[in-house]
Amino acid sequence: MAQAQRTAITPTRTDDYPEWYQQVIKAADLAESSPVRGCMVIKPWGYSLWENIQRVLDARFKATGHQNAYFPLFIPKSFMEKEAEHVEGFAKECAVVTHHRLAAKEGGKLVPDGELEEPLIVRPTSETIIGASFAKWVQSYRDLPLLINQWANVVRWELRPRLFLRTTEFLWQEGHTAHSTEKEALEETARMMEVYAAFVQDYMALPVIKGEKTASERFPGAVSTFSIEAMMQDRKALQSGTSHFLGQNFARASGIKFQDESGKDQHAWTTSWGVSTRLIGGIIMAHSDDDGFVMPPRLASAHVAILPMSHGDHSESGVREYCDRLAGELGAQKYMEGSIKVVTDAREMRGGDKMWSWIKKGIPLWVEIGKREVDADAVCVGFRDKAREKRTVMPRAQFVAGIAQELDRIHSVYFDRAMALRETNTRKIESKDEFYKFFTPANAEKPEIHGGFALCHWSGEPDVEETVKNDLGVTIRCIPMDAPEEEGRCVISGKPSRRRVIFAKSY
Amino acid sequence: MAQAQRTAITPTRTDDYPEWYQQVIKAADLAESSPVRGCMVIKPWGYSLWENIQRVLDARFKATGHQNAYFPLFIPKSFMEKEAEHVEGFAKECAVVTHHRLAAKEGGKLVPDGELEEPLIVRPTSETIIGASFAKWVQSYRDLPLLINQWANVVRWELRPRLFLRTTEFLWQEGHTAHSTEKEALEETARMMEVYAAFVQDYMALPVIKGEKTASERFPGAVSTFSIEAMMQDRKALQSGTSHFLGQNFARASGIKFQDESGKDQHAWTTSWGVSTRLIGGIIMAHSDDDGFVMPPRLASAHVAILPMSHGDHSESGVREYCDRLAGELGAQKYMEGSIKVVTDAREMRGGDKMWSWIKKGIPLWVEIGKREVDADAVCVGFRDKAREKRTVMPRAQFVAGIAQELDRIHSVYFDRAMALRETNTRKIESKDEFYKFFTPANAEKPEIHGGFALCHWSGEPDVEETVKNDLGVTIRCIPMDAPEEEGRCVISGKPSRRRVIFAKSY
Repeated sequence: MAQAQRTAITPTRTDDYPEWYQQVIKAADLAESSPVRGCMVIKPWGYSLWENIQRVLDARFKATGHQNAYFPLFIPKSFMEKEAEHVEGFAKECAVVTHHRLAAKEGGKLVPDGELEEPLIVRPTSETIIGASFAKWVQSYRDLPLLINQWANVVRWELRPRLFLRTTEFLWQEGHTAHSTEKEALEETARMMEVYAAFVQDYMALPVIKGEKTASERFPGAVSTFSIEAMMQDRKALQSGTSHFLGQNFARASGIKFQDESGKDQHAWTTSWGVSTRLIGGIIMAHSDDDGFVMPPRLASAHVAILPMSHGDHSESGVREYCDRLAGELGAQKYMEGSIKVVTDAREMRGGDKMWSWIKKGIPLWVEIGKREVDADAVCVGFRDKAREKRTVMPRAQFVAGIAQELDRIHSVYFDRAMALRETNTRKIESKDEFYKFFTPANAEKPEIHGGFALCHWSGEPDVEETVKNDLGVTIRCIPMDAPEEEGRCVISGKPSRRRVIFAKSY
Repeated sequence: MAQAQRTAITPTRTDDYPEWYQQVIKAADLAESSPVRGCMVIKPWGYSLWENIQRVLDARFKATGHQNAYFPLFIPKSFMEKEAEHVEGFAKECAVVTHHRLAAKEGGKLVPDGELEEPLIVRPTSETIIGASFAKWVQSYRDLPLLINQWANVVRWELRPRLFLRTTEFLWQEGHTAHSTEKEALEETARMMEVYAAFVQDYMALPVIKGEKTASERFPGAVSTFSIEAMMQDRKALQSGTSHFLGQNFARASGIKFQDESGKDQHAWTTSWGVSTRLIGGIIMAHSDDDGFVMPPRLASAHVAILPMSHGDHSESGVREYCDRLAGELGAQKYMEGSIKVVTDAREMRGGDKMWSWIKKGIPLWVEIGKREVDADAVCVGFRDKAREKRTVMPRAQFVAGIAQELDRIHSVYFDRAMALRETNTRKIESKDEFYKFFTPANAEKPEIHGGFALCHWSGEPDVEETVKNDLGVTIRCIPMDAPEEEGRCVISGKPSRRRVIFAKSY
């Protein structure tokens, strides 16, 4: 056995992918579990990713005509019950507020007191409470379309939590719109799926497949659900954003009615769409490596870490002044909608330790500055996408002038790598045998990375979904939008099919 | 009786101030009550004010070294109980989660199910849950100071809700910091009070008094609480921001300990500070008039409304093209950290109605554009701070070039007006009789605007506070920071006093 390369993260992806994921988060200081079961603490380095995601998406929502508003955290139980499928979908995982104070009883012990007449549900999603407002706001076709977004926290009780991917409380945005025609609502649903897809590809450096969910994977109460699906490094799919066409279901449940141009009363057509802090889990799982977190440059909390190399007294060699000047020059460079973000790490510690801490944090570029660099008016640059030995000494001015271009190069490397992973692990599968083999680990004792996206014919039967879910933990991720019509036979049941769908394990 | 001037809002401030407040909010479309008792819906025009407040304050928090993070919505009951005064302060008004699902029982009816072992409190504030994280993050003096801020929703059960001012759920930011010395923590407490004061004065156009709270008005668990207090148009005080020095109380409760430079274990010194959506209530009450909402320009959702005046066909007269060009020119002008925000209102409606809708929304400037203005290359400008008849026709280029200056002029008018109101209604009072008269309405049948800020000597006795609170609903708003030492006698008890404090009614 060849000697293994030492890595900053133990275990490696191959050794134990789920544990590797936890260790990457820990080493990069992104988040941690909290004393409240299922809830996480998002630490500053992780939260700044969410701030960047918010900033970019918020601008795109506004550019497509949406306005932000804010609706109550609590939903009366009776509101949830207005849409039958909806309440069934969320009843099993909701936090219920039953009292409005604590009072000292039983020998001074504080117990819940002031029982509410009607329990309140902490919102798992806000269709029903926003619907109540929409019903008041919409009277005439002139009030439509109504295009609203909310940035909020939501709660879905989670028994097997996992940082960013499945947490009881998470942060998200939820768009809610009402339209006068079915066609317009369908267009909105498609438009927001496109906004999400473009964002994930252009900022997260992650290719996605756009498609429609099957009935069994639909949002509770929706007529149709669209999603974008990305492949993680363990070959599983991550649903990274969803856009729902709700038909008139929620408009009927909430009484969202308008008078059309001919004076007739009609129910509005509504949509909803959302992405959450789960996207951060996707960034981690898609790009990180055995040395830690890898931040896509366009969402990075910082682009460049400047590391003054300490050999006793800085002031003499002018290292600190040089670093300050460099930071100023870099910070003045434009990048995307903003400018280059720089951190200077002046901690007194070994240069190697300092470098490693930034590698683990996923910084796209770091520069080491010692007396030698100052004297040569140069920088020694490290690249997160290259082996760490491949540091390059280059003139300071050249580095500063080329910084935006360099970050875009790194963005492309990450995107291409993710695309290559997906292409290598997407396979057209034609037989049930091959299908089962594809999704079964070779060694049942030791979980390993296996499977991928299986592009297969499906008859449309829910029974087939049920079977592969029970046997293999595999589901249909989506019916891709761009799948060509093609005659074939269902990979499981052999019945006629006209289109391939994507089967995969998922988060 | 002279004929009353017609106003857009009924009733006027003088007729019924509380009802006027509700009507201003309604006419400007800022917010509304929700079906969840005590919770509000913040509508887009109101929410955009919160977005502007967030943007400015967030930059100032970051400029003073703070980082954002996110902590759980839920707090285990036992955490709240760790600090005795703290839990006593919030126990009477907290939403309690007792179950984690709904289940069908009793003939299909959904009831709370899955009772939690320990009830969870929906955060009324996060000292205790953030303290649990700080205890993990802080080991050594090198980890300090720890400077964290959170933007979040909080819940304090409210039996007499009032939009923006007192709602069961509200949006806020809460800063939480830990320091190695008392001095440093006290400096932080003072620094953030200054940040708030500067923000409220420079952006909200509202003068504030900085001061310390008396023991009875302190944050539950704090050693000292500082606040900024502003006078509303009904002469009541609005506490607009608070900054708490928590001593080592919460560090002891949560176990936030560090090893100092000499290797000795010590408890950290902590602070917390916050402002909330209540600030929007302050903006409304401080500046609005009997024609509706008045937005201070530096926080305005939009600065200029362009109103194309419709006389049939626009295309012929070129009105629409002229408006579009004007919007583009204005939008390219810098203002504060951003640029001029313009809305063009092309709705088909009477010009007068259109103008009134923008007056009620509080827009600082509006311009009416008809064929006459197009032909003269001019604009007809209306100013929210002037009588609506005082519209001015001026050359387009002059208006565009002077827009930022004009908005700053309006900002100053609002600030000066608020300052004049406060000065007129602040009085040094030396006798108990005069004090009671100042705070008692002349006509007990009809509530009216009366009182103000009474600058009086106070002996330091809690009994005095208790008495005037019970008799008059008056409290000590603060002991002003800049109050000179001055020998005197308590206005109520006659006992010796060395400083004047501010007594007022408040929200």
